[in-house]
Amino acid sequence: MWVYEKKLEYPAKICTTNPKLAKVVITQYGGPDGELAASLRYLTQRYSMPTPQTKALLTDIGTEELAHMEIVATLVFNLVKDASIEQIKAAGLDGYYADHDKALYFVNGDGVPWTAAYIQSKGDPITDLHEDMAAEQKARSTYEYLIQLSDDPGVTETLRWLRQREIVHYQRFGEALEHLYDHYSKDRYYFMDGKNE
Amino acid sequence: MWVYEKKLEYPAKICTTNPKLAKVVITQYGGPDGELAASLRYLTQRYSMPTPQTKALLTDIGTEELAHMEIVATLVFNLVKDASIEQIKAAGLDGYYADHDKALYFVNGDGVPWTAAYIQSKGDPITDLHEDMAAEQKARSTYEYLIQLSDDPGVTETLRWLRQREIVHYQRFGEALEHLYDHYSKDRYYFMDGKNE
Amino acid sequence: MWVYEKKLEYPAKICTTNPKLAKVVITQYGGPDGELAASLRYLTQRYSMPTPQTKALLTDIGTEELAHMEIVATLVFNLVKDASIEQIKAAGLDGYYADHDKALYFVNGDGVPWTAAYIQSKGDPITDLHEDMAAEQKARSTYEYLIQLSDDPGVTETLRWLRQREIVHYQRFGEALEHLYDHYSKDRYYFMDGKNE
Amino acid sequence: MWVYEKKLEYPAKICTTNPKLAKVVITQYGGPDGELAASLRYLTQRYSMPTPQTKALLTDIGTEELAHMEIVATLVFNLVKDASIEQIKAAGLDGYYADHDKALYFVNGDGVPWTAAYIQSKGDPITDLHEDMAAEQKARSTYEYLIQLSDDPGVTETLRWLRQREIVHYQRFGEALEHLYDHYSKDRYYFMDGKNE
Amino acid sequence: MWVYEKKLEYPAKICTTNPKLAKVVITQYGGPDGELAASLRYLTQRYSMPTPQTKALLTDIGTEELAHMEIVATLVFNLVKDASIEQIKAAGLDGYYADHDKALYFVNGDGVPWTAAYIQSKGDPITDLHEDMAAEQKARSTYEYLIQLSDDPGVTETLRWLRQREIVHYQRFGEALEHLYDHYSKDRYYFMDGKNE
Amino acid sequence: MWVYEKKLEYPAKICTTNPKLAKVVITQYGGPDGELAASLRYLTQRYSMPTPQTKALLTDIGTEELAHMEIVATLVFNLVKDASIEQIKAAGLDGYYADHDKALYFVNGDGVPWTAAYIQSKGDPITDLHEDMAAEQKARSTYEYLIQLSDDPGVTETLRWLRQREIVHYQRFGEALEHLYDHYSKDRYYFMDGKNE
Repeated sequence: MWVYEKKLEYPAKICTTNPKLAKVVITQYGGPDGELAASLRYLTQRYSMPTPQTKALLTDIGTEELAHMEIVATLVFNLVKDASIEQIKAAGLDGYYADHDKALYFVNGDGVPWTAAYIQSKGDPITDLHEDMAAEQKARSTYEYLIQLSDDPGVTETLRWLRQREIVHYQRFGEALEHLYDHYSKDRYYFMDGKNE
Repeated sequence: MWVYEKKLEYPAKICTTNPKLAKVVITQYGGPDGELAASLRYLTQRYSMPTPQTKALLTDIGTEELAHMEIVATLVFNLVKDASIEQIKAAGLDGYYADHDKALYFVNGDGVPWTAAYIQSKGDPITDLHEDMAAEQKARSTYEYLIQLSDDPGVTETLRWLRQREIVHYQRFGEALEHLYDHYSKDRYYFMDGKNE
Repeated sequence: MWVYEKKLEYPAKICTTNPKLAKVVITQYGGPDGELAASLRYLTQRYSMPTPQTKALLTDIGTEELAHMEIVATLVFNLVKDASIEQIKAAGLDGYYADHDKALYFVNGDGVPWTAAYIQSKGDPITDLHEDMAAEQKARSTYEYLIQLSDDPGVTETLRWLRQREIVHYQRFGEALEHLYDHYSKDRYYFMDGKNE
Repeated sequence: MWVYEKKLEYPAKICTTNPKLAKVVITQYGGPDGELAASLRYLTQRYSMPTPQTKALLTDIGTEELAHMEIVATLVFNLVKDASIEQIKAAGLDGYYADHDKALYFVNGDGVPWTAAYIQSKGDPITDLHEDMAAEQKARSTYEYLIQLSDDPGVTETLRWLRQREIVHYQRFGEALEHLYDHYSKDRYYFMDGKNE
Repeated sequence: MWVYEKKLEYPAKICTTNPKLAKVVITQYGGPDGELAASLRYLTQRYSMPTPQTKALLTDIGTEELAHMEIVATLVFNLVKDASIEQIKAAGLDGYYADHDKALYFVNGDGVPWTAAYIQSKGDPITDLHEDMAAEQKARSTYEYLIQLSDDPGVTETLRWLRQREIVHYQRFGEALEHLYDHYSKDRYYFMDGKNE
Repeated sequence: MWVYEKKLEYPAKICTTNPKLAKVVITQYGGPDGELAASLRYLTQRYSMPTPQTKALLTDIGTEELAHMEIVATLVFNLVKDASIEQIKAAGLDGYYADHDKALYFVNGDGVPWTAAYIQSKGDPITDLHEDMAAEQKARSTYEYLIQLSDDPGVTETLRWLRQREIVHYQRFGEALEHLYDHYSKDRYYFMDGKNE
């Protein structure tokens, strides 16, 4: 179970109201490679992990991604909350506004709702960890694109921090993969490079 | 942010391996009215709540639903983990098995992946609380149907506890709706019964 | 079965060609809380209603929502029919135009196609009526947002009328819920407030 | 607008409770080529039709498909209403039951929810009528497959009647296509056989 | 199996960087009536074709659509590759960019991901060929709309060529339908005009 | 463009009609980690590859996956083509049959239609290659699960061959990743292990 702590893992300060930026940042809330996707992927895969360390790793990172999801939501909320109707329209956010006003909803930057088809839980821990390393890369890339699109220094600073955490997660998953290769005593390792299949 | 506590909010003990039961119970994991849907609905709506009490309520219930999601996952995991391939096939779980082995994945009882289209976050707190009360009713009903389908006393016991929690949540949301009517000083209340529109 | 009458339940007059407004109004045609969603929800739930009054209510309101769907379609059609290609592009409607020209299609304001995942039919009439009351609130809210976005007095007038009908439906569903509590002789009523569960 | 008449366009009598048959028949309610798809396709395309006859044709057939949708729903309802939990499970309908009890919901025979992606409204009436003729063929085929799967003479009789209506609709659409070729004075006709492009 | 030849079936030259045009042209890559849809529809239906000529036709046209898909991808790639971030934003392509940078991905002009729900494979070759003729019409119409939206002569030229190929495919499918009517010795033909049902 | 060669890359012989096995094998046709997913992922990512070797690799493997898709389709076709209606029903394939008869359609083992949401094309070649290596692992795992479910030695032999090809692809992608690290002269490599970020 989880206990809520009423603090953001990192600040989500913005400089100016900017619904056009919010419209794209939201993809790390409800998009294919965002924090919701990451959290659910790890929290659902953890049941298949064969060692206490890997179970704990996926639970911990999955839980941290919830905190990241919260930071992204707060960025979006802050960027939109004081926007006028004219600003909303000029930002191309009127389609979203008609359905949600200024509320948070799980979509990407084009309004496509989140689907579990974005993630996978395969049962084979080697496979799952490859999926996880790829997921962290995809999140890193998305943050890089958002940083390019961002014209708000406050938002950029938070995006950079979030991107950095993806890099750390990627490394943790890489170490876990090595740990699992040892756990399976090299059988699995050689099997995937064809030498003793 | 969230802190993980390594315990289930309620036990998820089963009596016997039963993949056919797991196949339907999973709908409260990844189905339209399950715990994931509930959690995400409340955690995303909380940004729109206008008073500290309503923000806190949605955060707390949204956080508790994560614990419920964990209980359902554990039930499914326990029901499937010792199933033989023949049992998997007899249960009609072979389609799921081909994609996921015995891992947990967010689907309903027919294998349809979860979609954010199941939930709404409307920005209007009166509307959102009506959505939430309906959501608790839908969860209650689903637990009643699962209880009818269940032939495992251990599973049934946990399903009954989960159902009971939905009833409590429904009541909390009903109280919050009254609180909001007061907050909006009856304007909103009368407007929806047409008397002073 | 249904008989078609060649008249709109309420006029759908517009003042000026306005594809940018059409782009958002269409969400009450093919969006999550629009008239198609409402109509199909009630017409499919009616099979589960236990009394002639509730069956008739859901059939009647479901049938009226078809008329509302027709009004919204007519608004969109009128707002777009004389738009030039340049107006279409300036409105951000070129994505839609490439797939549909000026035809009507069931999407929301961001082009997301309608899905039955937006609605529910639960079998339990108490649950269904809660879903229906929430649906009317969501429709009301969407009309309020569209009224805020509308800069066409003709469109606004029709949106206000449609919104008012949602309020009336909400009241009818509230009365039906009370009727059902009586029908189930308070067993169901108390069961949901925990006193005699 | 529409007026409801409380009668089925054709009887929907069954001989025996049969949830396994209901599970497949439902595809003509909420599946890709069913009556909902047909109705919505024609009712939405009618706005693009250039002559009063074609507008009226699509409105009339679209309205009749609602009556067909009602017949299919009634078949499913009758086949399931007296089923025991054991029959539901044996029929593989337990996944559906967990989410809907014995209510009607828009899915195909594998529980996939209906999506507007199944239909198209292209704006070009020649294109739309081709889409409509194909739709009637797809409905005919589905009824043929359901007739093969049906072991209930009452159900089979109704399926045969519904299939026959598809054939009539196909012919009406074929005539409408010819009517439109005349309307466009052969320009369009030759353009699609490449002779004067 | 397929062998790749490193050449485009037709050139995909553009005159100017134009992300706003790319945003709509992409619908013939990943949209409902685009080249991916066409290719997969024919390549999957071919298994149901009853004669060597029809099997070969669907394989050949399905294979050619892959080449068309490649041409459309190249158009989009060329239109976007030199776009600045400011051009991307002005084009409303920033939502896409946040998820994909300048990569190619299967969406329509509003960012909706491709789904197999767009196509059908019915098993009945008469039905399938009707579906195919409708598909070619829908593709033709989409190309016409894109030609209207295009302000790049190079792109327009390629779109015209692609449209022309759809017309040829439509004719091939029409001939195949006649061939199948002969194959089934008029039984099928008369059955669909009601005379000897 | 592609040229079709009328031969399977590997035989798809079966021993016995077996619709129950076909029902699960089809997931490597239209499921999340199947050959269609693989082919489209690589063929769409190739536009982002920065070197001739990586462009060629993605094109070649993407083209080979089409051949694999063909083999899987042939297995399914062979397993189903002589099945009686009773066998279809006993296999739980009646839902599929109602919509498709014995035709091939892009679904997974539970009838969920393929969606582009299963794949990603990120624009960053390092990210894409991680996605590709994960995809090959997921395909390997699915083949392993199908081999466990298979009770047909002919099918098993083909599944084993297909699995072996995934392992080879995984290795090719691993080599390509190393090639790209060199291409980007270690900047990218160190940046993802945090040492010189």
